[in-house]
This record gives sequence, structure tokens and C-alpha cells, in this order.
Amino acid sequence: MTDLTMQDALSRLSAYWGGLGCLTVQPMNTEVGAGTLNPATALRVLGPEPWKVAYVEPSVRPDDARYGQNPNRIQCHTQFQVILKPEPGNAQELYLGSLQALGIDITRHDVRFVEDNWASPALGAWGLGWEVWLDGLEITQFTYFQQAGGITLNPVSVEITYGMERILMALQGVRHFKDITYAPGISYGEVFGQAEYEMSRYYLDDADVPTNRELLSAYAAEAQRMVDAGLSVPAHSFVLKMSHAFNVLDARGAVSTADRASEFARMRRLSNAVAKLWIETREKEGFPLVQAAPPTMTATTWCELPKQTGPQLLVFEIGVEEMPPAEARDARQQVESALTARLTAGRLPHGEVRVHATPRRITAIVADVAERETDAVTTVRGPRISVAFKDGTPTPAAQGFARSNGVSVDALATTVVDGVEYVCVQREEPGRPAVDALAESLSTVVGGLRSAKNMRWNDPELAFTRPIRWLLAMWGSEPVPVTNSHLRAATETRLHRNADHPTVVVDSADAYLPALQAAGILLDETARRQVIVDAARTAAAKVGGSIDVVGESALLDQITFLVEQPTAILGDFDPGYLSLPDAILTTVMRKHQRYLPVRDAKGRLLPHFVVIANGVIDPATVQAGNEAVLRARFEDAAFFHRADQAVSIATMRERLQRLTFTDKLGSMAERADRIAGLAQVLSSGLAMEDGDRATLKRAAQIIKFDLGSQMVTEMTSLAGVMGREYALHAGEATAVAAAMLEAELPRYADDQLPQSTPGALLALADKVDSLIGLAATVGLPTGSSDPFALRRAAVGVIAIHRATPALAGLSLRHAFTEAARLQPVPVTGETLDAVAEFAARRLEQQLLDEGHAFDRVRAVIIHADQPSTADRTLHQLADLAETAEFGRLAAALQRARRISTTGGTEYAPGSLTEPAELQLHAAVTSAAGRLPERPGLDDLVAASGALPAAVDTFFDDILVMAEDPQVRTRRLSLVGAVAALGDGVLDWQALRL
Amino acid sequence: MTDLTMQDALSRLSAYWGGLGCLTVQPMNTEVGAGTLNPATALRVLGPEPWKVAYVEPSVRPDDARYGQNPNRIQCHTQFQVILKPEPGNAQELYLGSLQALGIDITRHDVRFVEDNWASPALGAWGLGWEVWLDGLEITQFTYFQQAGGITLNPVSVEITYGMERILMALQGVRHFKDITYAPGISYGEVFGQAEYEMSRYYLDDADVPTNRELLSAYAAEAQRMVDAGLSVPAHSFVLKMSHAFNVLDARGAVSTADRASEFARMRRLSNAVAKLWIETREKEGFPLVQAAPPTMTATTWCELPKQTGPQLLVFEIGVEEMPPAEARDARQQVESALTARLTAGRLPHGEVRVHATPRRITAIVADVAERETDAVTTVRGPRISVAFKDGTPTPAAQGFARSNGVSVDALATTVVDGVEYVCVQREEPGRPAVDALAESLSTVVGGLRSAKNMRWNDPELAFTRPIRWLLAMWGSEPVPVTNSHLRAATETRLHRNADHPTVVVDSADAYLPALQAAGILLDETARRQVIVDAARTAAAKVGGSIDVVGESALLDQITFLVEQPTAILGDFDPGYLSLPDAILTTVMRKHQRYLPVRDAKGRLLPHFVVIANGVIDPATVQAGNEAVLRARFEDAAFFHRADQAVSIATMRERLQRLTFTDKLGSMAERADRIAGLAQVLSSGLAMEDGDRATLKRAAQIIKFDLGSQMVTEMTSLAGVMGREYALHAGEATAVAAAMLEAELPRYADDQLPQSTPGALLALADKVDSLIGLAATVGLPTGSSDPFALRRAAVGVIAIHRATPALAGLSLRHAFTEAARLQPVPVTGETLDAVAEFAARRLEQQLLDEGHAFDRVRAVIIHADQPSTADRTLHQLADLAETAEFGRLAAALQRARRISTTGGTEYAPGSLTEPAELQLHAAVTSAAGRLPERPGLDDLVAASGALPAAVDTFFDDILVMAEDPQVRTRRLSLVGAVAALGDGVLDWQALRL
Repeated sequence: MTDLTMQDALSRLSAYWGGLGCLTVQPMNTEVGAGTLNPATALRVLGPEPWKVAYVEPSVRPDDARYGQNPNRIQCHTQFQVILKPEPGNAQELYLGSLQALGIDITRHDVRFVEDNWASPALGAWGLGWEVWLDGLEITQFTYFQQAGGITLNPVSVEITYGMERILMALQGVRHFKDITYAPGISYGEVFGQAEYEMSRYYLDDADVPTNRELLSAYAAEAQRMVDAGLSVPAHSFVLKMSHAFNVLDARGAVSTADRASEFARMRRLSNAVAKLWIETREKEGFPLVQAAPPTMTATTWCELPKQTGPQLLVFEIGVEEMPPAEARDARQQVESALTARLTAGRLPHGEVRVHATPRRITAIVADVAERETDAVTTVRGPRISVAFKDGTPTPAAQGFARSNGVSVDALATTVVDGVEYVCVQREEPGRPAVDALAESLSTVVGGLRSAKNMRWNDPELAFTRPIRWLLAMWGSEPVPVTNSHLRAATETRLHRNADHPTVVVDSADAYLPALQAAGILLDETARRQVIVDAARTAAAKVGGSIDVVGESALLDQITFLVEQPTAILGDFDPGYLSLPDAILTTVMRKHQRYLPVRDAKGRLLPHFVVIANGVIDPATVQAGNEAVLRARFEDAAFFHRADQAVSIATMRERLQRLTFTDKLGSMAERADRIAGLAQVLSSGLAMEDGDRATLKRAAQIIKFDLGSQMVTEMTSLAGVMGREYALHAGEATAVAAAMLEAELPRYADDQLPQSTPGALLALADKVDSLIGLAATVGLPTGSSDPFALRRAAVGVIAIHRATPALAGLSLRHAFTEAARLQPVPVTGETLDAVAEFAARRLEQQLLDEGHAFDRVRAVIIHADQPSTADRTLHQLADLAETAEFGRLAAALQRARRISTTGGTEYAPGSLTEPAELQLHAAVTSAAGRLPERPGLDDLVAASGALPAAVDTFFDDILVMAEDPQVRTRRLSLVGAVAALGDGVLDWQALRL
Repeated sequence: MTDLTMQDALSRLSAYWGGLGCLTVQPMNTEVGAGTLNPATALRVLGPEPWKVAYVEPSVRPDDARYGQNPNRIQCHTQFQVILKPEPGNAQELYLGSLQALGIDITRHDVRFVEDNWASPALGAWGLGWEVWLDGLEITQFTYFQQAGGITLNPVSVEITYGMERILMALQGVRHFKDITYAPGISYGEVFGQAEYEMSRYYLDDADVPTNRELLSAYAAEAQRMVDAGLSVPAHSFVLKMSHAFNVLDARGAVSTADRASEFARMRRLSNAVAKLWIETREKEGFPLVQAAPPTMTATTWCELPKQTGPQLLVFEIGVEEMPPAEARDARQQVESALTARLTAGRLPHGEVRVHATPRRITAIVADVAERETDAVTTVRGPRISVAFKDGTPTPAAQGFARSNGVSVDALATTVVDGVEYVCVQREEPGRPAVDALAESLSTVVGGLRSAKNMRWNDPELAFTRPIRWLLAMWGSEPVPVTNSHLRAATETRLHRNADHPTVVVDSADAYLPALQAAGILLDETARRQVIVDAARTAAAKVGGSIDVVGESALLDQITFLVEQPTAILGDFDPGYLSLPDAILTTVMRKHQRYLPVRDAKGRLLPHFVVIANGVIDPATVQAGNEAVLRARFEDAAFFHRADQAVSIATMRERLQRLTFTDKLGSMAERADRIAGLAQVLSSGLAMEDGDRATLKRAAQIIKFDLGSQMVTEMTSLAGVMGREYALHAGEATAVAAAMLEAELPRYADDQLPQSTPGALLALADKVDSLIGLAATVGLPTGSSDPFALRRAAVGVIAIHRATPALAGLSLRHAFTEAARLQPVPVTGETLDAVAEFAARRLEQQLLDEGHAFDRVRAVIIHADQPSTADRTLHQLADLAETAEFGRLAAALQRARRISTTGGTEYAPGSLTEPAELQLHAAVTSAAGRLPERPGLDDLVAASGALPAAVDTFFDDILVMAEDPQVRTRRLSLVGAVAALGDGVLDWQALRL
């Protein structure tokens, strides 16, 4: 609680950043959706000129209009925007200073930098960074701006965007934005309430669609004309007006899929043109704001300590601004691999290599690193000795070789390679001191760090998930002079930013871990996870609750890499919210806030949660803050829940027309239609009960309707869950409601699978539609990028097929072909082949991951079109594999197939003469006669009878490759008939016997 | 000079006003031309709710775009806007505090409140107030807002609008806005220069006209729809967008006269609708910001001093926020008249009444005001004594009268009226003490103060040119308890706001003048004027120059009422500016800055000026400030001069199409065409030399072209002067160039008149066109308001006619009729009559003002259609009037006209019988024969010969009214013939002999 008013907060931020050399400019004088769009950001981040600015930006988002009724959502919210260009290297610390300027005692609060990357495809802009949490409340967006207007930024700017209403609500402890004290004696609602209501009316209800279309097109025309005239500033202004007009149309539900795609493309193109123009214009003027080059960083003078003797501990810490959890984990792995590889390849004797990571550091600890590298001898091979010496006298060849290696002929030695003797030169390579060798290796390790999405900062060479800010490298008590680009290793590490001494100098490698521990930083992620689990359990136990450690495993993993100095805090919420569906509550807690839900002995949610805070905090403050955030989130959710329940399923389904799936694949409504159609088509070939057919019919009609709900719009991960919930609420049959959720399954690895056939069909159709449509338009994923999660879709298709008995007979190829028919774009045969292959690879991987032997997986993968068949065959194989019967059959079939893989050439049984021939013919005929139409492996084994024996006899007695071509052909055909018996059952050749 | 940056200045103003309880809000997120348009002003000043706000407003004026090249003119300038609602009573003092907050030492500077009233007809808004000058530089607009959106405001708001670039240029001592230090190390030009250039390009060159027309119409449609939907906030936003689109079109020269009129009307209508809606909406919500009524002002407890005895001096001071000079003069007169009238009508013996005025006070000083009113007796008359008493006994009539007057019958007295005796009641009315009588009278004087344009402030009853803030009233040492509405007289007066003690308590009336004098305030305007003249002369003498006291008389009069504590300061300017035409330099000095030009002995301008500062100042600071202002103004003028010289006359003439004369009378181009046409038509009836005809032809073609120059656009008073200047520069003939100026003459009372016939014809045509067109559309002026200066136009027509011999034969009626033909609107005969009558009244007044006797003026006014004839006749009359000859003729004619004013009835000369008849017939016939066709008075006198004698004889000898009707008729006809001789020469009856 504070007396700070909103207007004082704005002026304090202005004063704070002004004091740090930022210009203050005014908000844009046309409607913008964010401070980023103000030319003071959008244009000034371009090009080489430095720029520091701070300003207020009332940001208009017609879509967020709620008539002023929603406590947290406003059509015009107030951003405070800061741009630091180039990024100064300590923007996080500067930012924390600004919170203190707002009177926030950051030593009492849990302030965290939580991964959040920003991109505006419509403007060709993106950056990496965080949302900053204050006791769980997102108060700021902090971004290293990488690209704007489609142009890669150099230097990189830091963009800091404060959400002022949020901050003030938290600081003042009010629950509705209208209750913020805007200035002494007057509330936000009193100042802006009427405008909020009336502008909401305009945006949501009253804006005239044709007029706004006209405006959009007029603005676009002016923007283009200004681009053509070479005037970036007015052009930019018109792009902003376009964007606002578009947003108005969107809020009025008047943007079709085609419009959206083309408008985005147009805005992107214009933004790019504006950006180029701006840079060109500035360049013509000689980039007037570019200053003399800043003084280059003075190289650290490495202090000369007494050299260590004997093996020592190596500590190498890479300090990074808060890494996303997945990246921290991955970086740990990278450093471990790279360092191990370097050490292994090198000649520095060392002990165990351990690497740990927290959000802010990756530390390698290597035991017993020797004082020096071992000495080595390099041999340079010359001519053969027989060429080099004739009669013991060096030939010109030897002389030349010696000369070119800078030695005298006397110094040539000999070496034997593959039994041949050569002359050679041998060089002594004395080992370097450890610190020299390490400096080189560790530098390479740092320079090699990469993430899935890399950013640039104010460093000419490095690129990583977030800026690398410091290195600590010590071998025993000796600093290791690691350098890379601007980085210089030192003997200082950084503790929590709130610590009494945020940095600490480490005397020796041995002192490193104790220093962290003394500060409460848990470096070892495994230990840290356990501490978190224990602390959370203890906290939950206070209210008789517990944490589902297994169920929350993924969340715990994430939390482990979100904090390095964990403190568990138990928070409460109003039990009234327990009337909301569990999934909503847990989604809010987990996904939005990373809170651990607390449950009673029966697994029911209790009105409590555990938050794991980071660093030095005041628990009561942090608890209160997080509770307020959760309350607001639950209130929001309750609001959406109520609002959605007041709307019919049909209405929500209609709203899908306004949601784009992709530019080329149309709206979500069209996609839902395709899914419905595909599921129906596929069902027609399946045996299904009438009840299931009726369920499928209704479920298909309303499939995905919940994407049109406010709840799912807000929390997309609740798609399906809310579908079931709202369907039940609307009186749909339980099976139909269940299908709404099932159709979305599986949503992630190890998620549950559809239980009902209608659900399974819809789920499969959903994923097949994605696969085919996207493969035909954007292509199948290659490399690590998979923006549409097509791998997960393929894995889902296979899992569903395998898990649903009713689908056993369904051909994926058939499903793909039918899905292709329904797409709004042509789908080629090549695409279908590629998708089939893509699915097959996933199946193969899935089976291998399940522990099946590689050869057996290869053997059954011919059933990729019907994964459940592959599955069944693989299981039969597992059962039969060890039987002698199978072994003999398999051996017989392989033997037959080795000779004739052609098979199928008819032979006249009457032409057979030899007994072994006749016997084999009888065995084949008998076995074939016993096989069902589409034999399984078990069928084949059961039918094989005397076949293996007959095959053995045949090959023992008969020379297949007879000289008489007729005989030879006949015998090959007979062998072919044997081989053909196994066709389509297994890939027999793949099987290792 | 200061280190204060622009951004610091903004933040200091925010902090200052925030500290006084103002909200800070953000600029409007659509382009606005001024902070006034932000809803935080435009809407919040409406209705009863209090509101205090301060904000920055980047204000876009496409018309002011100059590509960033003009040092003082910017398409987007920065306003800092303050609204105080209700006006707090001390806004001027609060404002001065804000200057101190900016680091301006107001004790060193000449800070002045100079009349400047604000109106935006397009938005139905107006207010009264000042521009605030800092050493001659206009830095702020200070307005008491009276009306907005067509709605009269109650309570009244104070609006304070700072022009930030101006202030910063002055404070930092830079000459170009781009050189302002915007923030440490970065200039305004570096921050905004490119935008200034590019947006100028857009507004002046590149904005697409059809697209902006579309935008305007789309915005208008949305504005109307929002009004219909009852949503004032979005409606207002669209009105702002309309306004901007209109301004863009205007800057592109794409607004026709018809467009302008209809757009203004539309915006006015919509603004009014928005304003009404806003108030309605707020009313529905119960005007939530209305607070409990502020505590009513506690009445002053009048201190009980020992009562004076004997006559005492009365001082009554009315303290007013800075009055416009004309209003101060007028208010002085009003107080003098009102007070004198009250005192005369009352019974308080007193001596001389003197009233003086300064910008801030009107003070009445009355000598020897008696201690008490004289006692009086009132007589109430009753019935006649004969009715009241019968036989000495009171009748019921007497009893009733006594009873109704509350006296006994015994107390009845008697009184004689018109010789009749009545009973009566006599009441003693003892005189009140002086202070009681004065309190009543003075209150009435205050309450009766009115100005040409009155405003309201935070007072429920009073209305005056500016707020009345204090009263001082003392009779000797006794305070006079004058009250009126919220005002309570005290014994305190206010000195200059910078004085060490800005207020001083006066012990007695005698101490008042000494107190003012001690503070340097010169109350007596006559003395003050003389002090100013002397000081200016002394200052000019320092550089060997002088002040043209006669020529600058009007300016000196104005200055006298702009300062009350004058200090003359000599300033210098760069002699290089002397190359500009004198008229430009003096116009800038006089009209814009109220500086006195300094001239050498030959009347040539010297590079110096005298400014009369007010109050306690630092002369060097004020000198430097004013010099900087003048430099900027001269630089501006030089810029316009250069720019204009680069443009052809034809181009300037074309620009007149973009200037509106009036909505109904079309553009200035059309008006110029009419003037040209009219002058040509009128010339055809006149004798003119060929050279003059050629001059007229060319001059008519380009007449008024200089209205299309930048110089005249900036300084309208230079119209004509620049026409001559630029015509000469363009190589036009000297006579043509001269006609450009002559056509505008006379521009004010006592201005010179055209010397050439072409010039006179054009000047006359100019004014006749105004008179006829405006009479036919807006009507002739009535009352004191004469916005189109039609009185001046009529006076000009007459003066030109009188002064130009070549026009002597020109009939004004003919000119009016021809002008009517050229108007784009129908002009009725009634209008022509009304204009003729209007002109005749002006002529009459002119002649009277010249000292001619009323009867003679009346006698010649029949020549109003040809004022020069009236003139000539009047002069002849003056020459002849004292001659016996004229006297006899006049008497004879009057005698004849008294009997027969009909005249013209034929009589048969042969029927005359009496000698006197025959003699008279002969005399009449002889005189008539000698008269030229249109006789002048001198012709008539010369021709009269024996006529007077014959008339005398006739009337002596002959009985005109003979009994014989035939004889009577004959004689009357003869007399009529005599009377007819004087027809059309004079109005003989009007002449007093």
C-alpha cells in the first residue's frame, strides 16, 4: 500500500529515466496500440544512431474494450516506455532502480525476470526478453529489440514497457482499475471512466464498418504515397492509422480471414519500406546522432598471483541475464558437452566435469585440473625411407623434406606406418600451463553457446538466448584469463540483485560454491529441485494439504530453472473460486503464475497455492502480492466463465469465423468444418454403434466451438476442457461433451488419449487436417523449428490410432487423402507421400522410445499406415521371437527372400519333379491356404506348419540355380512363392535373427 | 540564459501545477491544433463539475509548416495547458509562480498581461484574457473561458496556455527553435527536425487532396453517428479528426469558400451537439465531481474606528485584472459619470470628483465629502383641504389619509400645489452617515460597470471586461463598507506583483495616493502619459534620436493604459533590418510590440526603439529580452519579404481564391474582381486622362493581390503598403503601384486619402462593395458592434468623394446600384435606400464634426448622394451666409416655400394682372433663365438679381389667398415658381436665418 498516485508514478519514472539521460517525449498524436509504435521507438531503434528516451503512451486496444466493467481490462491503458540504444549492459539493474524510484522496496518483493519473447509479425518486429514479475504480477515487458520493420537492429536497443495501471493497482492495493487513485482526491475512474465506457461502445458496438474500411484504405493509400515520396515520418504515421483502423474493424468482428492476411502483409510491407526509408534518410544526413566511438573497453590487467602447483579445482561461471528455463537446461548441457569434448581432445589431465545451471549462471566445476598440459611429440611424415636415402645418403627428397620442415637432414627420424618405413620430423610440444590452455578452451565454450532463438546485444560477436554479462574463471586461486569479444573473465560473481553485496569476489575456485551457498544460491539444479519440492510440501502441509509432485513434475522442472534462491510461500485464495472448474484454476495457477496447486488427501483443490519466490524477500509482502494477482486472475476467469455461460454454443461457434487458422487455410470455422467432415467420412468405413454415430454427428457440428469463448481466447490451453464444460452446461449429452475434450487430445507428451470412438475420430481428424493443410502450405518442419507443432500432431495421430480399437482398420493414407480433398488448397501426391513418411518416422521413433529393438521396429514399420497393426505385430513378434518355430519360419523366409525377392512368378506345379520341390510346393500351398486374407504374424506362424522344414530340405537337396534356364526359373518361382507368404506381415530382411 | 532544457521545463511546469492540485493527463491521441481541443479541456470545462488539470499538448497546425526552416514557425509546437475550474480568483498570481518555477526571476523581467481575446467560431468557443508578455515576448495565452461548444460556461474556467518553444528560445537565448536544448546534449532540431521537415512536406506539398476529402467526410459521418448514439467522447474525437483533415486540406489550398463556410458550420453544429451530450451524460450520472458547496466567503467584520467628523477625502479604488486599454479608459469614464450622478442625486455634500485609471485599477477621489447627508423632509400629499375638512372637522377622507400614513389627524400639515391647498404628511428624513450613503452608492457604481465585451468569472453576479478582484474604499480614515456580490471593500490596495510587499494597507484616504506614488504607480493617466513621453524622448536622445509624439499619439495613448509604473528602455536592432520597408518595421514595432520607433532629425528610422516596461524590472534583462523578440519578428518579416519577392504578382493574386471574404460573398478573389469591375464601370462616366485609364485598368487587374503575400497574411495592416512595395519590385508602373496602396485608403480615422483618380476609384469601389454586399447579407451595423467596420467604409467613401475632384460628378446611388449588380446575392431597393441613408448620416456627422453649423449641414445634406457637392455647397454657404444678398434671397425663398412647397404648377403669365404679380413673374423668369442646368448655391445667388425685392413687393401688395379660387391658384403657382428656383440647391427650410 502506498500513497503514490498514478500521476506521481508517471512523473517519478520520467524523472528517474530523465536523470539517466533519457529524453522525454510526448505520446504519439494518433492512436497506437503500444508505445513501441511511437516513432520515438519504432523509427529511432533503426540504424546506428544512439537514442535514449522515456515517455508515456496511452495505448489503445479496441479488442480490450470492456465498457470499463472488467477490473483489469481497458481499451486505453497507459504504458511507460523506455528505450536504451545501444543496450547499456546493465539495463536490468537500471530497471530495478526505477522500481525503487516508485517506492517499491525491492528487498521485500519477489521481482523476477520471466521469459517472454515479443514479436509483431504485422510490423516485422521481434525481440527477446522477459516479463517482469512483482510478486507474481506482470508489471513490465523487458525486451532486447532484435528486429523492427523487418530490419535487423544494430545496435540492439533495450525496450522497457511498464503497465502503469497494473503497477498502480498493486501498489495501491485496489482491485479495479477505476479505483486507482489517479491524483490526490480523484480516482482513475473519475478521470477516465466515461471515456472508457464510450470508447468501448464505439469499438465494440457502434463503429461503422464501411466507414472504417474506407478509412483503412485511405490511410493505406497515403502511407504508400508517402513511402513513394520518400517521407518516412508521415508514412509511419499513416501505417499507425491503418493499424488502428484495422483494430477497430477487428473489434467489430469485421475482418475476414482473407482481409487479415492481406492487411498484415500490407502493413508488414509498408513498415519495412518505412524502416528502410528512415535509415536511408538518416544516412543521407550522415547519421547525425552517431557520436564518436565510445572508448573501447580497457583490457583487464590480469593480476599476477603466485602460480599454483599441482592439480587444482577449476570453476568457470558464465553469467547470463535470466535465461528461459528450457534454455538454461539446454545451456547446461551444451557447456557440459563442449567442455568435456575440449578437455578430452586436449592434453590437460583433469578429474570429474560437473556443470550446473540456474536462471542467471551456468557453472562448470572440474576437479583436479593439472598444472600443465602433458608434453607431446608431433610426427611429420616425409618420403619413404627407400626414397629418402640411397645407400645411406640422403637424396634430394630427404633434403627437401628436411629443409621444408626447418631441420637438418641429421635430425630426420623414421616412423613406420602400415608396415612401411618413412623418414619423419618429430617435434616436441611442451604442455602449456593450465590457465593458458583453459583460457582458450573456455573461450571457445562461451563463444559456442547458442539457443533455439538467439539474440544480439551490445556485443559485436556473441549471440545467445539472453545477454552474457560476466565470466568468472579460476583455477585454484589463479584467475583464468578467458576472453571472448567484450567479455573478460574476472574473479567476481554476482549474487541476487537485492543482496547486501550484490557482487562478491571469490579468492579461489574452492571458495566459489561456499560463496553462493552463503548467499542462499543453490547451484545444483537437482538439489534445488528437491529443496523446492520439500519446501512446497512443508508449506502445503500447514493447511493440511499436499503437492502432487508427480503431476506437477513439469511445473517443478520449470520452477527449478526460474529461481536460484528459492523460498516457498503459501498463499490463500477465496474458497468461492473453487466453484470454477478445476482446469481453469489449475491452468491459471500453473501456466500463468507458476504456482503449485494445493490439494487435499482426495486430490481435491484447496483454496491455497504455493509460490516459489526468488532471493531476498519479505514473505508477507510477497504472499499478499501474489494473492492479489491470483485474485485478479481468478476474477477475470470467473468473469469470462459467467460471460461465456450466457452465450449459446451456436454463437460461440459462429465466432470461429473471425479466428484465423492460417492465411491460406482459412478461418477456424472452416477448419472445424473440415474436421467435422473428415471425421464423418472416416467413420463411414468403420464399425460403430449407432449411439456413437449420433454422438459423432452432434459433436462434429459443434466441434471447437469453445475457441469462440472468452475463456479459451484468454487461456488457449483450456481448449477442449472448456468445450466439455460449456457443452454440459448447455445441456449437450455427456458423450458429446466428452468428445469436445477428447478431440483436443493428446495436447502434450504423455497426455491422456480419447476414450470414445467419436472423440478419437475427431481428435485424429483434427490432427490430420493440420498435417495435410500445413504440409501443403507452409511445409513439414525441418530442423528444430516446428511452429505449428506438426510433430506433436503426427505423434498424436499415431497414438490415437494405436489406442483406439475401433480405428484399427483405418488407413492413415486414406485419412490423408480424404483430408486433402477438404483443403482449400491443392495437395499433391508428393505431399501425401511426405506426410506418410513423416508419420512413419514418428511411429518408428515412438516404438524405439518404447524400448523395442531397432530391427523389430524396422521389421514392422511397413505397417506405418496402420500404426495399430504395427503395434500388434510388434507385440506378436515379441511373444513369438524366442520360439523355435518362429525362428525357423523367419530363417526360412529370409533364406527364400535372399534368393528371390521378386516372388509371385507363377510356376506350373506339374512341372515340379524333385521330391524336395514337391514337398515344398505342398507346404507352401498348405500354408497359403490356411492364411486369412490379411494375415497377421501370428496367423503366419500358425499357418506355416511344415514350411520351415520343407524350405530347409529344399535348399539342402536342390540346386536352385540349375543350368537349365526353365528349371532355374521354376525353382526360383517356387522360392518366390515361399517368400511371398511373408509379404505384408513383416519386413523379414530387417529382422536380425 | 539558463541551463533549463525543454524537457525539464515541461516537467517543472507539471510539478508546479500538480503541486497546486492539478491532474496531469496525456496529450490527445489524435492530431489537435491546440491543447484546448483535448477533451480534458474541451469537455471538462462544460457543466458544473470542478476540474483542475495540466498537460502537454503537441499542437499541429499544418498551415504553420515551414519545413523547419523558419526560426519561429513550426507545424507541431508544444503547448503546456492548464485549466482551473472554477477560476480560483488568483490565477494570475499562480501563473507568475509558475514562471518562477521555470527559474524566471520575475523581479527582473517585464511581465505583462496584454489584452488578447480568444474565439474559435468553428467550435463555438470564446473567452477573454491576455497574452502574457515576458519582455515583449508573447509566452502565454491566459483566458477566462466564457463559452465552449456554443454553451455558456458556468462556472468559468481559467485556461493558461504556454508556448513552450517560445519560452525556451527566450530562456536559452537561441534564435532558431531547432537550437533549443531539448535535453542535455541534444537539441530540439536533433529530436524533431526530421519530423518537422517531413510533416511539412506532407502538409504543404504531398497530402493527397481527394484522400483527405474522403477522410474529412468519413470522420464527419462517424462524428454524427456518435452524436446520434449519444456518445460524446468518440464524437468529440471525430470532430477533432475532422478539424485536422480540414486543416490539412486548407494547408494544401484545397478549401473553397463554400467548403469553408459549410465545414465551419458543420463543425460548430457538431461541437455544440457534443457539448450538450457531454453535459447531459454527466448530469445523468449526477455530476459526480461536483463537491459540497465551498464555504461561503465570510463577510468582513468592519473594524469600528472612531467616527470622522467634518468633511473628509473619499478614495474608492476598484481593482481589476489587467483591463484592455480602451476598456480602462472607458471604465474611468463610466465611474466618473456614475459616481457624479449618484452624488448629485444624493444628499451628501462633496467637493470635486476625480477619477483615474491604470490597467489594474479605477480610482475615484472625491474631495470634502461631508460627514452626513443633509436632512430632508418628504411631503406626502393627501386630499384637497376642502375635501379633508368640513367646517374645520376632519372628514373620513382626512382620517383615512392620516391612518394610511400612520399619523394622527392632528399631525396633518398643508401644502399648496398649483394654487390648490392639500393636506399632507411631512416626514423628516435625517441624513445618513457618509459611509452608509457611500457604501450604497459605490456598490451601485461597481455593479454597473460594463464593457463592450463582458465576461463572467467565479462570481454569481458581476460581469465586466476582466475580473474585478478587490475594492478599497475609505472616507478619511474610516473604511466604507462597500459590498457587491462576493466583493468586500477593504483598506488594502495592491501594488505591482513583483513589489517587495505586493499589497499595502492604507491608513486613510489621504494616504492612498502617497502609497501608490511611493510604489512608483502613476494613477493619473494624463500625468502618466507625460512621464512616458518624457522618458521615451530622453531614451531616444541617448542615440541622437527622437520620438514622433504626434505621429505616435495613438500608440502613446495605448501604452498609457498598458502600464501603471512606466520605465522607458532603449533597445537596439541590427541596422541591416533598415533595408526593409519602413512600414514593415514600424508596424512590427507598433502593432505587435507597442514599441516606439526612434527617428533621426529627418524622420528616418534609426536602429533603435523604446519600450515602456511596467513595474520593478532589471533594465538590462528587459532590454535584451525585447531586443531578442524584435529580432525574431524582424527576421520573420525579412523571411516573408524575401519569400514574397520570389513570387509573381499573378501567383499572389491567385491565392486570393483561397481567402474567404465572407461565407455568402465569396472569396477575396471574387471580391477583388468586383472591386475591379465596379471601379471600371464607375470610371466610364467620368472624365479621365488616358494615362489614368491605363493605370486603372492595370491596377484593377491586380487589385488586392498583396493579400496573397505572406507578409500581409502575417500583418494585415500592411495591406496596400506591401501591394505598392511588391508592385514596384515586380516592375509595375509607379502609378499602378501607388494605386495598390491608395485603394486601401483611408485605413483609419485621419489616414491619408488617395491622391490619384485611379486610386480613388478603386478605394471607393472597395468600400462600396463592402457596404452593399454586407448590408445585403449581414445587415448594416446597429449599436456599438460593427465587426466589418462598415461605418469606417462609409466614412471612407464620403471622404474620397469629397477629396477627389474627378469624382465630383459621381452619384453614390449610382455606385451602390452598380455594386449591387456585381454581388453574388440579390440586393433589394430597400437595402440600397438603407445604405444611402447610412452614408448620409455619416456625411452629416462628418460635416458636424468639422464644425459646421447644424442648420447648414441639414441644409446641404440633400446632396448626400454627391458628398463633394454637399461640401461645396456648404462652403459656398459659409462664404455667402453673411451677405445681405443671400439673406434676402434665402428669406424670399423660405417665405415662398412656406406658402407653397408644391411648386411647379403652371400658371398662365397672361392671366397675371397686378404689377407685383407681373414684376415677380419677370424676376422669376429672369432668374430661372440665368440658372445653369444644375445650379450651385453661388449660381442661384448670382442669378437671383431682383427676385428678393420682387418677392417682398409681391407679399406686401398681394393677398395670395384671394377669394377667387382661380386667382388664388394663379398666385400660389407664381409663389411656387419662386420656391422652385431653390429646389435641389439647399434645404432652405432647414436654414436658420
